[in-house]
Amino acid sequence: MATQHIVHSFDTELRFLAAKIIEMSERGENMIRLSLKAVIDNDLALAAQIIADDAHLDRLEREVDDKAIAIIAKRQPMAVDLREIIGAIRISGDLERIGDMGKNIAKRVAAMKETHQNTHFYRQMQCLADLALVQLAQSREAYVNRSLALIEAVLKRDEEIDSVYTDLFRHLVEAMAQDRDKITLCAHLLFCAKNIERVGDHATNIVEMLYYMITGRHPSLERVREDLTHQICNN
Amino acid sequence: MATQHIVHSFDTELRFLAAKIIEMSERGENMIRLSLKAVIDNDLALAAQIIADDAHLDRLEREVDDKAIAIIAKRQPMAVDLREIIGAIRISGDLERIGDMGKNIAKRVAAMKETHQNTHFYRQMQCLADLALVQLAQSREAYVNRSLALIEAVLKRDEEIDSVYTDLFRHLVEAMAQDRDKITLCAHLLFCAKNIERVGDHATNIVEMLYYMITGRHPSLERVREDLTHQICNN
Repeated sequence: MATQHIVHSFDTELRFLAAKIIEMSERGENMIRLSLKAVIDNDLALAAQIIADDAHLDRLEREVDDKAIAIIAKRQPMAVDLREIIGAIRISGDLERIGDMGKNIAKRVAAMKETHQNTHFYRQMQCLADLALVQLAQSREAYVNRSLALIEAVLKRDEEIDSVYTDLFRHLVEAMAQDRDKITLCAHLLFCAKNIERVGDHATNIVEMLYYMITGRHPSLERVREDLTHQICNN
Repeated sequence: MATQHIVHSFDTELRFLAAKIIEMSERGENMIRLSLKAVIDNDLALAAQIIADDAHLDRLEREVDDKAIAIIAKRQPMAVDLREIIGAIRISGDLERIGDMGKNIAKRVAAMKETHQNTHFYRQMQCLADLALVQLAQSREAYVNRSLALIEAVLKRDEEIDSVYTDLFRHLVEAMAQDRDKITLCAHLLFCAKNIERVGDHATNIVEMLYYMITGRHPSLERVREDLTHQICNN
C-alpha cells in the first residue's frame, strides 16, 4: 500500500512536469501565431503584449528545472524515468527559445510601417508559420502520446519548411534590389522569417529528444536541419 | 576506505563532465574564429572543414547527456552535485548551438564572393567576433574557477556586443541601399553578424546557468539580452 502510494506520488510529479511542458508548447505556439499577426496588422499593442508574455515562458522553464531537480533528488529515478526528467529539461529549453523567437518578431513591429505594400510577403510568411506551427503542434502530440510515428513525421517535414524559407529569403532579397525604400523593412522581414524557420528546428529538436526519452537511443540518422539560404548568390 | 574510493570516483566522473564542457567551449570558440576567417579570406576549404567539425561538437553534447544520466543513475547525487550535472547538460546545449553558429557562417562563404570590396564591414565583424569570443572565453574561465566576479563581468558586457551589432546592422542596410549589387552579399553578412551576436547570448546563458549551479538561485535580475536592431527604421 505504501509502495503504491509512493509510485502514485511519483507519477503525479512526472505529470506535473509534462503539464508544464504542454503549457509551454501551447503558449509558444500562440506567441508565434500572434507575433505574425502583429506584423501583418502592424499592431503595436499586440506586439507589446507578446513581449510581456515571454517572461511567463521563461518562468515556466525555471519551474521545470527546479521541479526536475527536486524530483531527481527525492526519487532517485533510474533509466526511463530519469530520461523522462532530463528530457523535460531539454525540451523546456527549446520551448523557451520558441518564446524568444515570438518576442523577437514582435519587437520588430514598430520598425515595420509599410505593411499594406507587402501582401505577397505576408502570404509567404503565413505559409512558413503555418508549417512551423504544425511541426510544433505535432511535436506536442508526439510528446503526449509517445508516438514514434509522429516523431518520424516531424523529422521528415523539416525539409519542407527549409524550402519555403529559402524561397522567401530569395524574394525578400529581390524586393530589396528592386526598391531601395523597402530595404530596411525587408531586412527586418528576413529576420522574422528566420525566427519562424527556427521554430521548425526547435520542433525537430523536441522530437529528437523525445525519441531518446522513449528509446534510450539518439536518432541515428543525422537529420537535415538546413537553412538553404546560404546557397543563394547573385549570379 | 571504501567511502573514500566512492567519493574519489564520483569526483573523477564530475571531472570527466567538466573536461567535455571545456573541450566543447574551446572547439566552439575556434569554430567561430575560423568561420569569420573563412568569410574574410573567402576560403572555401576552411569553410568545409568547419562544417565537418560541427559533427564533433554534436557528438560531445550527446556524450555529456549520456554521461550525466549515467552519473545520476549510479550516484543519486543531491543538491550541489545534482545542480552540477544538470548544469552540464544545459551548458553543453548552449555550446552545441555555438558550433551551429560557426557552421551557419561557414555555409555562407560560397555565396559571398565580393570580399575585397568590404574591408570596412569585415573590420566591424571582427570587432563583434572579438567581443563575443572574449565573452565565451570568460564564461569558460568562470566555469573552471567557479568565479562569481567573472559571471558578473560577462553579464555586464553583453550590452556592448548588442551595441556593436546594431551599428553593423545599420551599416549593412545602408550599404544595401547604396549599391544594389551588394544586396545579396549584405543579406548574408547580416546573418553572419546575427550568428556572432548569438554567441554572446549563449555565453551569458552559460554564466547564468553557472550562477545557478554555484548558488542554487536563478539570477534575480532579468538581464538585458537585447538585439536592438528592431529599433532601426527608415525614417
